[in-house]
Parts: sequence; structure tokens; C-alpha cells
Amino acid sequence: MRIIEIIANKRDGIELSEEEIQYWITGLTNGEIPDYQSSSLLMAIVLNGMTDMETTHLTMAMMHSGDVMDLSTIEGIKVDKHSTGGVGDKTSLALGPMVASCGAKMAKMSGRGLGHTGGTIDKLESIPGFSVTLSQSDFISQVNRISLSIVGQTGTLVPADKILYALRDVTGTVPSIPLIASSIMSKKLAAGANTILLDVKYGDGAFMQTPVQAEKLAKAMIAIGELSQRDTRAMITDMNQPLGFAIGNALEVKEAIATLKGNGPQDFTELCYQAGTIMLVQAKVCTDRADARKRLEDSIASGAAFEKFKEFVAAQGGDIDCIDHPEKLPKSKNVTPLLNREEGYITSIKATQLGISAMKLGAGRQTKDDVINPAVGLLVYKKIGDYVNIDDVLVDIHHDSELSDEFIQDLSSSFTMANQPGQPVELIAKIL
Amino acid sequence: MRIIEIIANKRDGIELSEEEIQYWITGLTNGEIPDYQSSSLLMAIVLNGMTDMETTHLTMAMMHSGDVMDLSTIEGIKVDKHSTGGVGDKTSLALGPMVASCGAKMAKMSGRGLGHTGGTIDKLESIPGFSVTLSQSDFISQVNRISLSIVGQTGTLVPADKILYALRDVTGTVPSIPLIASSIMSKKLAAGANTILLDVKYGDGAFMQTPVQAEKLAKAMIAIGELSQRDTRAMITDMNQPLGFAIGNALEVKEAIATLKGNGPQDFTELCYQAGTIMLVQAKVCTDRADARKRLEDSIASGAAFEKFKEFVAAQGGDIDCIDHPEKLPKSKNVTPLLNREEGYITSIKATQLGISAMKLGAGRQTKDDVINPAVGLLVYKKIGDYVNIDDVLVDIHHDSELSDEFIQDLSSSFTMANQPGQPVELIAKIL
Repeated sequence: MRIIEIIANKRDGIELSEEEIQYWITGLTNGEIPDYQSSSLLMAIVLNGMTDMETTHLTMAMMHSGDVMDLSTIEGIKVDKHSTGGVGDKTSLALGPMVASCGAKMAKMSGRGLGHTGGTIDKLESIPGFSVTLSQSDFISQVNRISLSIVGQTGTLVPADKILYALRDVTGTVPSIPLIASSIMSKKLAAGANTILLDVKYGDGAFMQTPVQAEKLAKAMIAIGELSQRDTRAMITDMNQPLGFAIGNALEVKEAIATLKGNGPQDFTELCYQAGTIMLVQAKVCTDRADARKRLEDSIASGAAFEKFKEFVAAQGGDIDCIDHPEKLPKSKNVTPLLNREEGYITSIKATQLGISAMKLGAGRQTKDDVINPAVGLLVYKKIGDYVNIDDVLVDIHHDSELSDEFIQDLSSSFTMANQPGQPVELIAKIL
Repeated sequence: MRIIEIIANKRDGIELSEEEIQYWITGLTNGEIPDYQSSSLLMAIVLNGMTDMETTHLTMAMMHSGDVMDLSTIEGIKVDKHSTGGVGDKTSLALGPMVASCGAKMAKMSGRGLGHTGGTIDKLESIPGFSVTLSQSDFISQVNRISLSIVGQTGTLVPADKILYALRDVTGTVPSIPLIASSIMSKKLAAGANTILLDVKYGDGAFMQTPVQAEKLAKAMIAIGELSQRDTRAMITDMNQPLGFAIGNALEVKEAIATLKGNGPQDFTELCYQAGTIMLVQAKVCTDRADARKRLEDSIASGAAFEKFKEFVAAQGGDIDCIDHPEKLPKSKNVTPLLNREEGYITSIKATQLGISAMKLGAGRQTKDDVINPAVGLLVYKKIGDYVNIDDVLVDIHHDSELSDEFIQDLSSSFTMANQPGQPVELIAKIL
């Protein structure tokens, strides 16, 4: 087999075989195939696409490029979820304890964030003492004991994805549904869960711009899941405005705590319920979604979900005093309100811009060596469709350093007002 | 400017600007843009194409990546021609003296061959003593004196093409009309001639498979020529069988000598006449093609073209005794005839297979470090449409080493016979 013939086949629209894809990923991982050949193949994939079968072969080849987690010593169905990422997306923090308190088992590996805000792992690390590094046996025994653990993804999982991701980033080959789908699914499959719920986001703050694109990506991932015998489902959700109010690590932990106590923002709470109902059905804890919804609402009302969160934080060494008293979580030196200057209905919010502003405060990383400041971030109180008066607080800025005029300007320009409300925003466009 | 945005533009079908293309070629040439970025851009060009304007900007950027020949001290119009390459194509050897003897000036830089047989330079080197390396001032003064010089292309001409060519070869990005056109035209423009005649070949022994593809390539190159103010014309010619009889370096020189004496193969002679008439009009030596044809026929009949060839060989140090007595040119140890085994009309000849057979004898290079044997090669006496009897000689094999059964088998299988003659082959499909 020769890589140049594999490139030529993809260039000429010929479907690649399992062996050809395996040959490429093996050569990529062990360094025998040089980057300049992989990058021309990547561009041919971007422009000519891949069939579901090719995408599945690619996913499998990537999955087996490194270690594959064996969760078989955890009894029962292990559920997992993945969000394609958005601004203010702290779903795992609340959803994990919710479904675990209802009896589902979640043994989750999660990534760090590069961009707007931290990833789930970074958010959890804003809790003093919390450890995201567990041995495999501790990880498994914790899930067997309390049904929930979330740890950082180890470097030995899917090394091909790291190589491909770095190469795609500098060769203009990021926007490709087969490449995005196989990157996500190879990590999910290697992480060993039995069921996968995908939250595929679209809009200004998401990678996919439209519900149609998001659905395409979701369907590509579901096809991979089905071809590899995992119960894979997806939600298509809106990311044209931040999810909940909080953007920033400790701020998002506080919001997750409030949500677990029944006091969370309406949109974020609803997303957790919707996702949770699907996961409880996937876990076969409930037979239908109505029953699952009831169980989840009860878990919040009874305090069981909040107790599960404390149990989880304690098990991974976190200071539960900070969970009982969230005001003890890291706090910024200053809080400056951003006041509204134009009366009217909010018709759009630039979620990406808000994410970038939060990153500039120190809530996210611009390069992978940046250190996150857990305390800083934004609380964005207003949503699309809200009517705002002059001097209403649009945002509370939690910051340590001085705010420049440019920063305030960028933040203000993230909101667009009009005399009439625009189209109402549907948080959950579709469930697949 | 950032290369990743340039790649993304080409990926998304956005026309690249002159500045963007210049930025890429500069970075490619000085090594600042890594190969993996150039290769993904190359694949995007292969799949999304380039406009005539983009192709011209690319050609110009490549042309200016190194030295550009200044032929202004040669008086009058300097003509040049380029063949996209074929099996048995020794056109420059006869055509140069023909047009020079009629008063056109040809200051030609030519390449070595990689593949079937040598390039023009390799063929000339089969003449004992012939030097293809002249100083620029000797090159120019020779053209001023005798109207003709052919030298090897210097390494300082179009370095970007060398880098791109090597990269395209290993990244599946060879088949692209804009990339082929800019590669050829950048070298032609850098070589400094005022007019360019392109011989774009199609068929089994050529890079382009059909007349339609060949015409597309020709038109792309003519567009570049026009946008850079060179009188550029093209012939679309058949390469479904070898041109003339001879394949191999000294054998081709002998055939060129025969042609200059009026005894050449009909097809090759006609091609030289057709090309020569266009070039004499381009050189403004003649006002119309009929007049030019007459002048060229006279130059053969009077011996002027042959005398010009001797003058040219002598000027570059070659042994003219070998030109007067071609039997003194390098000769192989053995000549073995390939006899026909199946009576009938020849309906197809695999020109590429014959080229490969000649290469295996030592007439061409498999890798750039191979040394050419000037003496060996094939004389293919039969053409498509010829009726052949059992034991007719199809080919004389000029060889130094033993011939394997496989070699003979490959050679025999290059000819297909049938009871009825097939479609007649038109040597010159079109003149543009």
C-alpha cells in the first residue's frame, strides 16, 4: 500500500477502504507518513467528503491508535455525553450529579478548554483541592461506589487525534463533518462508555453555524455510533447566546450549584432536564422520557442531586465547604456592572464576542501554556427577547485587572437592540 | 497576511489575490512556509481550480522566484517552443536548425528527462564533445552569431518550480491544469524569449489523455502568455504512438539528422514543418504560413538546415564528423529485431509501454541519479493503420545487456492487431 495512491483515490472521489484508512492512521501516529502527505489527504477529505463507512473506519483507526479504556468492571450501563462546545456550557457539572443521583453511571473523561473559557476539567479545578487525575482503579471504584467520576483525558488516549488536530489547525482543514465527527467519536469510543448523548450546538457561539449543519454533524456521529454498536443519540441546541448567565470557571461552578438546588437559570436548567431524560432512558433506569423527567425533577426537589455533587467533589478531594458556601469559591478583586445605554428589545447577542471577552479577563486560554484565572468572568443577565431600559445591568464583569475602554466597547457591542422583539430563540431545536 | 487564511480562501472557492499568491510563493521559496501548508493549498487548487488571472499571478510569482534571463542584447524576436513531452519527441533537434536557417533566433534552455527517455539536453549529449553548459555571454553571442543555441536550464531559474514539483510528486497534486500550466510557463517566461509555441500532446504516451484535456491545458497557457504580453500559440498533437521511429538518445539524433537531410519519418517531418511555419510567423520572418512552409522546405532541400545543425553542434564543441557520418555516433553492442507474430492491421500502439521499455534498456532515468546510456533504444518501424505480416520487423531493439523474456513480452504486447484498420490517427488535432 502506498500513501500517495490513497491520496489520489480520495482526490478522485474513490471511497477509501478500511485497510487504506488504517494504513494512513498507523503511519501518521508512528511518524512514518510525513505531515505534508497527511495534509494534502486532509484537504481532499474536506473537499470531497467521506461516506459514513469511511468516517467509521477513520474513527475506529483513530480510537485504536492508543489505549482504549476498559470499563467492564463497572457494573451496568455506563452513560456519557459530549457537547460540541459553547459559551457558558457547564452542563456536565450539573447533569452528572442529576443522572447519577437517579441511578445512571457516568465514568467521564473530559478535556481542558482552548479558547473562550476552560473545559469541564478547568471548571472543576476552580474548586479548591479538586483533583482531576485519578488512577484507573480509583476512577473505576469511585464510579462503582457513587456512580460518578469526571477526570482529565490521559495522553495515551487517541494520540492520532492530537496529531491530526494540530495539523488540521494550521492547514485550513478544520471545517469537515467527517473529520470533526471522527475526532469526537474516536475519543468517546476510546473512553469506554456504552451510551453517548451528543449535544450539537449551532449559532454564533458554536462551531456549526446553522441547525442544518449541526444536524448533519449529529447524524454523522450517530451513524458512527450505530456502526460501532453504541446507543448514540443527539440534541441539536441553540448557541446564539450564552447558556445560563455565567461565563468563567468558578462563576459556572456557582451556577451549577444553584441549578442543582433548583435556582438555576431557566434555559440551562431545561437543557439539563432534557439531556438527563434521554440519558436515563439510555441507561435503562427509566423506560420512558416522562418518567425520567419526573425522576430528575424529584432529584432536584429532594436535594439528592445536590448531595450527589457534594459526594462527587469530596471523593475527588475537593473542599465541600465551598459547595455548601459557594461564596468561598475563588472571587475576583472587582465586579463592574455594564449598564445598558439603548432602550429596547434585545434581538441578538454575540456569544463568541462574550466568550472572547471572558478569555481576555483570564477565564480562558489563548495559547495552551496560558494559566486560567478561576475567579474571573462574566455574568450575562439578559437574553434575546428581553426588554431592557437605560441603566439596566446587562453584564456583571468579574475582573482582577483594569478594564480598557476597548474591552467595554466590545462587550457593549455584543448586544443589539430594536423597537420590536425579533424571532424567539428555541433552545432545543431537535432531538435525534 | 497569513498562509492559513490563503488556504481557507482557496478551500472555500474564493479567488486568491496577486498578493496572496506572491506571499505563498515567496514563503515557499525561502522555506518560511512549511511543506504541510503548501501541500494542503496544492490539494485545494487541484480540486477547486484557479482562474486564468490566478494562474497568471502564480506563474509570475514563480518566474520571479529566481533569476530571469535577459536576452535583450540579442537583436530581434527570440522564438521558443515547448513540448509537454512524449515518446520519441526529438522535435527541437531538427526544428531549431530549420527555423534558425530561415532567419529566426532561438536561444533555448532545455531540461533533462526523468522517465521514458532523456530530454533534449540528454539527446544532444550523445554527440561526442557537445557541451550544454555555456556562460550567459557565450550563449548570447552564439545566438547573435548563428541564431541558435540550446543549453541546460540553470539551477537559479524558477527555484519555486523545483520545490513545488518535488512536493506535488509525493502529495497526489500533479494532475491540475493551473499547476501544470504555471510550471511550464514560469520556466518559459524566465528563459526570456518573446514568442512561445506550445506542443501540447495527448494520448497514451502523454500526460493529457484526450484532445479536450490537452486543449484546456493549451488554453490555460495561452491565457498566461497573453496576460504577460508574449505571443503564445499552441498545437494539439497526438501521442498515441511514438513520434517518428526512434526512441533513445543517439538514435533520435540520427533520426533528426535524417530529417534535416529530407529523409526523416513522415509524421516527424510534418510536425517539424507545422511547428516551424508557426514559429517563422511568430518571428515575423514570414507574414503568412504558406510562405513560411515554402521557406522551410527550401531550407531542407538546399541543405541549409543541415548546415545550420552542423554549425550549431560545432559551436557547442560537438564532433561534426559524427554529424556527417552518423554511424560514428554511439552504437549499442547488439541489435535484435522484434518480429511480428500476428498478421493484421495495427490498431493501437502503447507508446508509454515502448517508452518504459526504452528506459529499461538504459535510454532514460528511473531516478534522477541514473546515468543514461546514449547508444540504446528502440526503432519502432510500424505505425497505427499499417498492415503487418508474420515475421515483419516491428521494432529493432538496440541494446547492450541481455533481453529478458518479460522484456520481449512487454514489447510485443504494445501492439494490437485486428482484421480491419481502426480509426486513422490525426497527428495534429488543432492549432490554437
